[in-house]
Amino acid sequence: MILIARISGQHTRPMCYLLLLMILQLGLHTAEGVWPLPQTLISSTERFHLSPQAFYFGYGRQSAAQQGCSVLDAAFKRYFALIFPDYTSGRWNLFSDKNESKILLQICLVFSGRASLKAVTVWGALRGLESFSQLVYQDDFGSYFVNKTDIKDFPRFQFRGILLDTSRHYLPVQAILKTLDAMAYSKFNVFHWHIVDDPSFPYQSRTFPDLSSKGAFHPMTHIYTQSDVRRVISHARMRGIRVLPEFDSPGHTKSWGKGQPDLLTPCYKGGIPSGTFGPINPALPSTYHFMATLFKEVSVVFPDSYIHLGGDEVDFSCWKSNPYVRAFMQKMGFGSDFTKLEAFYMENIVNITSALNKTSIVWQDVFDYHERVSTPQQITHINYEVRSTYYAELSRMTKAGMRVVLAAPWYINHISYGQDWHNYYTVQPLNFSGTEEQKKLVIGGEVCMWGEYVDATNLTPRLWPRASAAAERLWSDEKQTSNVDMAFPRLQDFRCKLVRRGIQAEPLYVGHCKQEYQGI
Amino acid sequence: MILIARISGQHTRPMCYLLLLMILQLGLHTAEGVWPLPQTLISSTERFHLSPQAFYFGYGRQSAAQQGCSVLDAAFKRYFALIFPDYTSGRWNLFSDKNESKILLQICLVFSGRASLKAVTVWGALRGLESFSQLVYQDDFGSYFVNKTDIKDFPRFQFRGILLDTSRHYLPVQAILKTLDAMAYSKFNVFHWHIVDDPSFPYQSRTFPDLSSKGAFHPMTHIYTQSDVRRVISHARMRGIRVLPEFDSPGHTKSWGKGQPDLLTPCYKGGIPSGTFGPINPALPSTYHFMATLFKEVSVVFPDSYIHLGGDEVDFSCWKSNPYVRAFMQKMGFGSDFTKLEAFYMENIVNITSALNKTSIVWQDVFDYHERVSTPQQITHINYEVRSTYYAELSRMTKAGMRVVLAAPWYINHISYGQDWHNYYTVQPLNFSGTEEQKKLVIGGEVCMWGEYVDATNLTPRLWPRASAAAERLWSDEKQTSNVDMAFPRLQDFRCKLVRRGIQAEPLYVGHCKQEYQGI
Repeated sequence: MILIARISGQHTRPMCYLLLLMILQLGLHTAEGVWPLPQTLISSTERFHLSPQAFYFGYGRQSAAQQGCSVLDAAFKRYFALIFPDYTSGRWNLFSDKNESKILLQICLVFSGRASLKAVTVWGALRGLESFSQLVYQDDFGSYFVNKTDIKDFPRFQFRGILLDTSRHYLPVQAILKTLDAMAYSKFNVFHWHIVDDPSFPYQSRTFPDLSSKGAFHPMTHIYTQSDVRRVISHARMRGIRVLPEFDSPGHTKSWGKGQPDLLTPCYKGGIPSGTFGPINPALPSTYHFMATLFKEVSVVFPDSYIHLGGDEVDFSCWKSNPYVRAFMQKMGFGSDFTKLEAFYMENIVNITSALNKTSIVWQDVFDYHERVSTPQQITHINYEVRSTYYAELSRMTKAGMRVVLAAPWYINHISYGQDWHNYYTVQPLNFSGTEEQKKLVIGGEVCMWGEYVDATNLTPRLWPRASAAAERLWSDEKQTSNVDMAFPRLQDFRCKLVRRGIQAEPLYVGHCKQEYQGI
Repeated sequence: MILIARISGQHTRPMCYLLLLMILQLGLHTAEGVWPLPQTLISSTERFHLSPQAFYFGYGRQSAAQQGCSVLDAAFKRYFALIFPDYTSGRWNLFSDKNESKILLQICLVFSGRASLKAVTVWGALRGLESFSQLVYQDDFGSYFVNKTDIKDFPRFQFRGILLDTSRHYLPVQAILKTLDAMAYSKFNVFHWHIVDDPSFPYQSRTFPDLSSKGAFHPMTHIYTQSDVRRVISHARMRGIRVLPEFDSPGHTKSWGKGQPDLLTPCYKGGIPSGTFGPINPALPSTYHFMATLFKEVSVVFPDSYIHLGGDEVDFSCWKSNPYVRAFMQKMGFGSDFTKLEAFYMENIVNITSALNKTSIVWQDVFDYHERVSTPQQITHINYEVRSTYYAELSRMTKAGMRVVLAAPWYINHISYGQDWHNYYTVQPLNFSGTEEQKKLVIGGEVCMWGEYVDATNLTPRLWPRASAAAERLWSDEKQTSNVDMAFPRLQDFRCKLVRRGIQAEPLYVGHCKQEYQGI
């Protein structure tokens, strides 16, 4: 598949050439143009004028993708507007190119007035369009330019996620869509939607409408309808982002209990029910029937092959207080080890989702308990790492053969005064003791924006550009991006690009953008 | 002066009565309605329906203010829109009322279908309108109601300020105006405009246009024109907010040097000028000529009788390095005490502004140096307190007879994770050892939003509702507002009102507003 952007340049070059030896030197000098930093980037001071009137995107003649490929057709339209913000409409036509090859992703700028972009997947092409769009700049007179640049690029990690929490505060769909836009600008590719939790259940289930009508903050205004969810998934897909839904259980489910009687465990005090409820009741067959029905719906609504089952922070005190749960423990031979009860529950849930052809993802807690139960092969999952001592945990989990997504150092809801993006940038995800095979099991990382103190009023400035620091760590070569001082002006520049694109990204330090945020 | 709001109520009461003994009990129960908490508030569960079609504001027949009073005419229009956000236009007509009295500020709701507001100044009337607007609420069907309420109110401190820093980042005028709107909602009354500093000089001077054309981040897009400044002052005045401009010197002036040659002190290294510059040069007569000319302009442009002269954080190393400054020290008999040089400079600047009939305000540093010079009576100023050990400093400064504005505990640009508004709420400005006379010298406090990490992208969610916590401390009775747990639901409620009014105020904790922020 070949994408070609036609550029009205005055210069003519015989071919797109690579000068690999110059990568580092030129990269350091000119890489300000692309965030996260491409694996190789060669640019020169030779610049070409882009005319919005003459510029268009087209498919190469021998490209597997052609006009009608909705993802790319829409991306051409979107990126035309991003590249030329002063112009409202663009043209995107087909023309031919013979230099097809199978490089993962390549943008060759500029020869014969053309830039070419070669990628093996449409998703790779989206990333290339993003890089290209970041290379274009305006002079003081408003003219558009791009420097001759050669990029070969691919991501270091395949999983580059952002978690949003829509239970502690409801996020209007527009806020989610805007976040997806910004995610694509930093080349994130997983939206981990922590959609429900204790405080509210905003997901409007077709099968169990009471879950949201009784469990949401408001049954009409603070919910995600089926249509809302479809819109989010579609918006994400068009930007090369998968949507990983999380229905966390058996803990973090207080809001579920409002719309589903007998789901949560009644807590006891002094031998009688206290009126409060604990985690989901793992001792009742009705629980598994309900969960199977709910996940059957969820597995259709969210088409991604992965599903997140949560499993974190289960408080055993309510289970312990309940005589029926204790009797169930005896019957199952769990003694007084409630981690066995939790493992039993999680294995049931994993089996339910496995039967629906989903690969399950869980928080690290499940792995911790799972080590102590008898049938580990039943669970295929990726563990999230949430502990602060994450190097030891990474060693331990990858040694057990688990695929791991690292989240611990990127709990970005935690704020502090000053340039705390340094903390997110200097993470070294593979700097733990383990074999090469173990390191390969670290499939990526995730920025978590937990919602205790965050809603649509402050989500964007808290997330950007701090999350972009993590994005470069997950995309780029670690050696080329080991220096925060080198990264600083590049990230400042990228942050101004975000602002120009309407993303309310906060400043890193004293200074200004050519175009300041005007969204007040 | 009497303001009367006509309310279409079904109930009739013979008169507006006060039940002072009930204040605390009812206040605790119903005070959720007004932030900051009024000095006395009596409300009942008796509620009245407000019809937007029939509601109007009018002037009492015997009111000193009448139609044509631009501040109140505009406020009627503004508050109609705030009270009835679903309606776009309001009527504000004149009708008569005979119950005039001279209470500082009183809202009597609701008798004979009327609410009356009595205030001795238009500024007090603005505060009363704000309180009234916060009392109105909507039921689930969208109908508007107000409970029968009696409020007597006045501020605890006369100076309730917010500092914005437009030098470290440029804030578009719209962002300043929006902040002024929100300030009025929390009854702040001083906008301390820290307009210039080291990084940039955005004030476009008529007399010295080079200061901004060379010293601003950008000479055209990152400046405040004379018209911009007039707009800010007018917008503030209409909301009962005075604009206190700060032209900080002799330190914090790097940006001044770009447009005004020979103003800053050339630093020396190894006996020759190093090419860098320090604070304003206090040894040259041209300095004082320039400052007199600049302040002559500033004193006209900013009509407030106060002016802030800065005087903080002066680094002496450059002065020390400069042989001409050292010679001047000798000539003046200052020996090697550079604090005497600074005091000399500041006294000159204070004299310049005194001659322009301005009362000067300076940062605490000036007081610290001033104690050591011979003629303290020359300076009449209010000291800002910026140290962390502010109780001792308050004692010391008020003992010296200085009027003080407390800023130290309200450096709100400093952020931390969690409910840090507690820190701003629990400040006890008068809890220092001193006489009653000394306590009277503490005229108020100020929330400072320094601009290192703040621009228009994140200003509003960082400022609100955290600054509102300080606002209640500065307005309300300390005993009635000593408990953060009692304040929490009230501040949550007020924050939702801010959001409803389009202010991007961040959440305090898990939860929701009936109307979430939709400004994405």
